[in-house]
Amino acid sequence: MLQPLVITSTQNPRIKRLMALSGKSAERRDTGLIVVEGRRELFHCVCAGGEVQEVYCCPSLYDANCAEGDVLSLCRGEHFEVSPAVYNHMAYRGGTEGIIAIVKPRLLTLNDLRLSQKPLIMVLESVEKPGNLGAVLRSADAAPADAVIVCDPLTDLYNPNTVRSSMGSIFTVPCVACTSQQCIDFLISRDIQILTAQLQDSRPYYDTDMCRGTALVMGTEATGLTDVWRRVADAHIRIPMNGSMDSLNVSVSAAILLFEAARQRRAGTPF
Amino acid sequence: MLQPLVITSTQNPRIKRLMALSGKSAERRDTGLIVVEGRRELFHCVCAGGEVQEVYCCPSLYDANCAEGDVLSLCRGEHFEVSPAVYNHMAYRGGTEGIIAIVKPRLLTLNDLRLSQKPLIMVLESVEKPGNLGAVLRSADAAPADAVIVCDPLTDLYNPNTVRSSMGSIFTVPCVACTSQQCIDFLISRDIQILTAQLQDSRPYYDTDMCRGTALVMGTEATGLTDVWRRVADAHIRIPMNGSMDSLNVSVSAAILLFEAARQRRAGTPF
Repeated sequence: MLQPLVITSTQNPRIKRLMALSGKSAERRDTGLIVVEGRRELFHCVCAGGEVQEVYCCPSLYDANCAEGDVLSLCRGEHFEVSPAVYNHMAYRGGTEGIIAIVKPRLLTLNDLRLSQKPLIMVLESVEKPGNLGAVLRSADAAPADAVIVCDPLTDLYNPNTVRSSMGSIFTVPCVACTSQQCIDFLISRDIQILTAQLQDSRPYYDTDMCRGTALVMGTEATGLTDVWRRVADAHIRIPMNGSMDSLNVSVSAAILLFEAARQRRAGTPF
Repeated sequence: MLQPLVITSTQNPRIKRLMALSGKSAERRDTGLIVVEGRRELFHCVCAGGEVQEVYCCPSLYDANCAEGDVLSLCRGEHFEVSPAVYNHMAYRGGTEGIIAIVKPRLLTLNDLRLSQKPLIMVLESVEKPGNLGAVLRSADAAPADAVIVCDPLTDLYNPNTVRSSMGSIFTVPCVACTSQQCIDFLISRDIQILTAQLQDSRPYYDTDMCRGTALVMGTEATGLTDVWRRVADAHIRIPMNGSMDSLNVSVSAAILLFEAARQRRAGTPF
């Protein structure tokens, strides 16, 4: 590895390019590149097959003795050293990690998914808030779900806020973006039951067998699921709410459903 | 009601006072007053016994024909009209609601709590992030829990971010702040079992009977619960995690536990 160059100006063209990738989804779409910040996130990204193109490290902030080991040494591509001021300019969150990279992520399609025998899949239709998607991914990692499928997304999967709020689980949970129709065709072809979260004509989620191959499908907090999903559903499920409020946060609802499926599967029976 | 005064300057002393109450916990503590923004939040605050001292309305932003009805007409205290520019200056979130008030909330103590026969109580020790507390309150409203008790809090209950992220449920769920020891004495005196969420020496949460009077106790994401809670626990419970990550968000964990208790109680049996 060559001695790294030290970048001390926020006006450096490479820094400006990274900022554009971080801030603009069109830049990410046109180049197929994303920005990954933090040791843990970068570790999981590299493990998942992401190709590091450029990595920027601020030695005074970077700690090689962390749980993930010396992540910098795992990074191929060009290495650059940046000053603390430049790092803090680049960093999306507080500058405590000292490492940030431009990466070509391994994009998955539905056909790339390797599913277990009775898969558990979380489907989100038109999720709006990157932070919500990130939180759902974190729960999907833990439950665990086989995959998260985002249908007709309104943001790109690799929005920096999604990467951050997922704490890197966007790289540990297989994650696919596609249209609702592609997803429906896929689920039906694999004989995976479709359970849609909706208030109308629905039964409590815990009265529903999730031990077989199951897709849990949720819409947006504001408008819920579109008709195409309601029509193909094997069952409609709801989380009973008994208070004064009329809705739960999407990431909270997703976690309740994912962990109920996990509970049923460990018990070996739904009820 | 008198014809309201119209305030058009952000430098108006009343506006500056409201901003101080909104931004500084010391101001709230010293005066016993809080700021409540939004129709729904203010509706629930007034229903819960909050005394409105001053209410600021921007007529071009305020809609009296909403689900909560004409909240403005429920407000006692002094009424003021503000210009859109002043309202947007005052508003914590985007200026879509048009109503914001200074309120003396009804503060509850442990002895004020009216509990059901087999209460379900969420206890948070030293919760740090107002947004997390707000999200837990929203789930506690829905589950429903009898109360949320915040022990040794690091923020005041009525931080504007808590009020906002709770979507008003901080006023619908009885909520008490006290010390851990006061809370423990209270729970023991009421024969409420104490289940502490912790990784060490714990069993899966779904293998634990939550049908009897139950307090679910959680610590901070960073450091977990203190020893005082671990020692008094009737059982230690954990949410099994099977992915690459090592923790769930506090509000997600709280929701999983609260809704498992709700599930067991509706089924009439834990297993």
